[in-house]
Amino acid sequence: MSEKESVSSSNASEEKPLLRKRSSICKASDSTCSSDAKNVQASKLDVNFRASAPAHKRLRESPLSSDAIFHQSHAGLFNLCVVILVAVNSRLIIENLMKYGLLIRAGFWFSSKSIREWPVLMCGLSLPLLALCSYAVEKMRIYFHIPESIMSLLHFVISTSSILYPVYIIMRVQPALIFGINLMLFSITYWMKLVSYAHTNYDFRCFRQENDKDEAISDAQHSNYPQNISLKGLAYFMVAPTLCYQASYPRTNRIRKRWVFRQVVKLLIFTGLMGFIIEQYVNPTIQNSQHPLKGNYVYAIERVLKLSVPTLYVWLCIFYTLFHLWLNIIAELTYFGDREFYKDWWNASTVEEYWKSWNMPVHRWMVRHIYFPCLRKGISRDGAVLISFIISGVFHELCIGIPCHMFRCWAFLGIMFQVPLMVLTNYLHNKFQSTMVGNIIFWVFFCIVGQPISVLLYYHDYINQKSFPIRS
Amino acid sequence: MSEKESVSSSNASEEKPLLRKRSSICKASDSTCSSDAKNVQASKLDVNFRASAPAHKRLRESPLSSDAIFHQSHAGLFNLCVVILVAVNSRLIIENLMKYGLLIRAGFWFSSKSIREWPVLMCGLSLPLLALCSYAVEKMRIYFHIPESIMSLLHFVISTSSILYPVYIIMRVQPALIFGINLMLFSITYWMKLVSYAHTNYDFRCFRQENDKDEAISDAQHSNYPQNISLKGLAYFMVAPTLCYQASYPRTNRIRKRWVFRQVVKLLIFTGLMGFIIEQYVNPTIQNSQHPLKGNYVYAIERVLKLSVPTLYVWLCIFYTLFHLWLNIIAELTYFGDREFYKDWWNASTVEEYWKSWNMPVHRWMVRHIYFPCLRKGISRDGAVLISFIISGVFHELCIGIPCHMFRCWAFLGIMFQVPLMVLTNYLHNKFQSTMVGNIIFWVFFCIVGQPISVLLYYHDYINQKSFPIRS
Repeated sequence: MSEKESVSSSNASEEKPLLRKRSSICKASDSTCSSDAKNVQASKLDVNFRASAPAHKRLRESPLSSDAIFHQSHAGLFNLCVVILVAVNSRLIIENLMKYGLLIRAGFWFSSKSIREWPVLMCGLSLPLLALCSYAVEKMRIYFHIPESIMSLLHFVISTSSILYPVYIIMRVQPALIFGINLMLFSITYWMKLVSYAHTNYDFRCFRQENDKDEAISDAQHSNYPQNISLKGLAYFMVAPTLCYQASYPRTNRIRKRWVFRQVVKLLIFTGLMGFIIEQYVNPTIQNSQHPLKGNYVYAIERVLKLSVPTLYVWLCIFYTLFHLWLNIIAELTYFGDREFYKDWWNASTVEEYWKSWNMPVHRWMVRHIYFPCLRKGISRDGAVLISFIISGVFHELCIGIPCHMFRCWAFLGIMFQVPLMVLTNYLHNKFQSTMVGNIIFWVFFCIVGQPISVLLYYHDYINQKSFPIRS
Repeated sequence: MSEKESVSSSNASEEKPLLRKRSSICKASDSTCSSDAKNVQASKLDVNFRASAPAHKRLRESPLSSDAIFHQSHAGLFNLCVVILVAVNSRLIIENLMKYGLLIRAGFWFSSKSIREWPVLMCGLSLPLLALCSYAVEKMRIYFHIPESIMSLLHFVISTSSILYPVYIIMRVQPALIFGINLMLFSITYWMKLVSYAHTNYDFRCFRQENDKDEAISDAQHSNYPQNISLKGLAYFMVAPTLCYQASYPRTNRIRKRWVFRQVVKLLIFTGLMGFIIEQYVNPTIQNSQHPLKGNYVYAIERVLKLSVPTLYVWLCIFYTLFHLWLNIIAELTYFGDREFYKDWWNASTVEEYWKSWNMPVHRWMVRHIYFPCLRKGISRDGAVLISFIISGVFHELCIGIPCHMFRCWAFLGIMFQVPLMVLTNYLHNKFQSTMVGNIIFWVFFCIVGQPISVLLYYHDYINQKSFPIRS
């Protein structure tokens, strides 16, 4: 099996141009010339490539022994990894199909049961009324000069009810998990927008008062308060793909209708793919699993590793459909110009970099309305970061805990676990001066440890809970 | 779940140096200065990072929409692939262990049965006698001036018997597969060395005669014939890690004993790993399979894909132990200087490039003793390539067919299949001007199609054959 063989030596290709040159000169000449060219070739062959010429002429190292291997391209090895991945995944797909058949049900996304969950839809549709209240409060401030403390109280009541009202509805109606999570996501987005609206307008007023004293700092952006308080402006902010309110946004000129159509088609395809992966790969694996913190650990590791690949793919689908396709479609339809909804988080060399680049709307909101206000209050940098993560953790817990009707704090703890992880990867990044180490750690926690363990924990606590009647 | 959050904005890190500079100036000063620095920071925060400052300032594209994505680094995605591969493989290892337990037997490599196969060992040990015959023929030529035709006949008889004698022994003794394959590999290596020895000495004589007529071409390398015909020189050629005879080789000065020891340890580890993979992963999969060309095709594809990963790892182990470790150890012990036993074939952008770089000893032998002699005989380039592949195919068939006691020509056809594959990848390489396409095709055929299908074909024909009594 070790006998493999050759096609033509590299030397052979070197002699080719010479031969070609020679024969092109001869082209118009007689036939003896071409035989002459043959002789030249033959004599060259005779001297350099005959058996009596030595095959080994100098000392050479094996490629794997030499240091050069570290500076060479490894593009081939990357291709090998991709090919193995495709092979392994294809086999697992075939194995899964042979074992379970097609598991997808026609009623996976919508069924007759979905109609019973109309209060969830109604709740979502009635949330914009709270934005109207917020608008009314701001308008009243302009006409009646309500003190700031009352303003804060009113905005607090309005924004808090945008969370509590959906929570109450979900607790009462107990809708299917997917509807509950979507309503919670919608209401938290709403809450963040309302907070940003109130905070920004408050800051406009502060800025005005400061500028009355000190005229040195002036910005066109701030001067048009209270003209920015309009129903149209608020409505635009509520539908635009951003969480940060500002008086005016960078806008595009036109809607590319064909482009939107293509994105919608992609959105449908990837949502379908996501549903297929969940039904066909995630569900059977979870249902055949045991609680990850109880029972055989080797078995638990096997389950977690088996789950890690489909959950990763689902996660990438969620990222692509939500952060790329969905937000871009909304942006295109609202002429919204700043499409930086994410940065290249897949290259993140530390966990900190990942959190800074993967969800830009929330990142910007956190920086603007939590992190810098904390710094201005005299809280230290680390303290401000910790507060940001606590708020993020609470919202993650709300998003998952409420629709599951339980508070196990797994989501909250998962987010808080990012803080030591961030410190660790920052330390490693500084120590090794390499982007690779942190990036690999990030991926390991992202796709092997994080997602599948959370999914298993929530699933088992969900089916084990007795306090609430289960409806899925 | 879409709510993720921020740590500190990139703007925040920009302001840091300014702040640090300011405070270092103040260091020796009084405490009011430090509060002054705080005010500077506070006013900076007030202007740039307050809620009233716009968060969206200009038009920006999403990273996945922009063309820049094709020019960015994808190091993170490579890391992701590696992490997924490790996860998937770890899971398959755990699953395999839970299903089969440890399959490796103590008597896998050597058992009491091995002693019965002493004729195989004897045959291997007696092959050097043929080298002595070859030496005797060359010596006789010097003293008795035997005509070249008789010389050719004698060398043909000697070299052919170095193949036929082991074939006869294997047919009679029917040793275990692994011993049979090793003996065939050894004897084919021997055959190639004998052919090279005879051909090179013949060419030395031709060169002398030509130089008697034409003194223009002169080379120190050729002048020392017939002094190079010595027992010592032949013995060195027979043990040196090369298939091409020449009067003298580039040599090293000393043997690095520690280095050799390390390589031997690695050799043992990787040979053990190879045996483990074969016993634990390849064998169970093969034994649970059906003939790939009969029965359910989906099932066959599943088996082939399942086999592809362990056979790839075995193949990489074979490459590493044989071409890197084993040949380097031999080279070190024989002071052999030219260690280029392989090039970076994993980056090969065409199948042709792969065959030119993966087995350099055989490649050099083919170029020197088959390809260029064919060209000199007036055979076209393509014809010479085809002849090289036919010879290679015959030897592959001998290597596997004889120890399996059957000629199904799968190995021969596998090698001949490389010719159209070579044409295809060369065409694609020229068409797309990209090294990636050819490299991916090469890996697909190398690790998914080639190895596992050959293994399955030979296994099923081996256990299905009735004409020979089976002994494994």
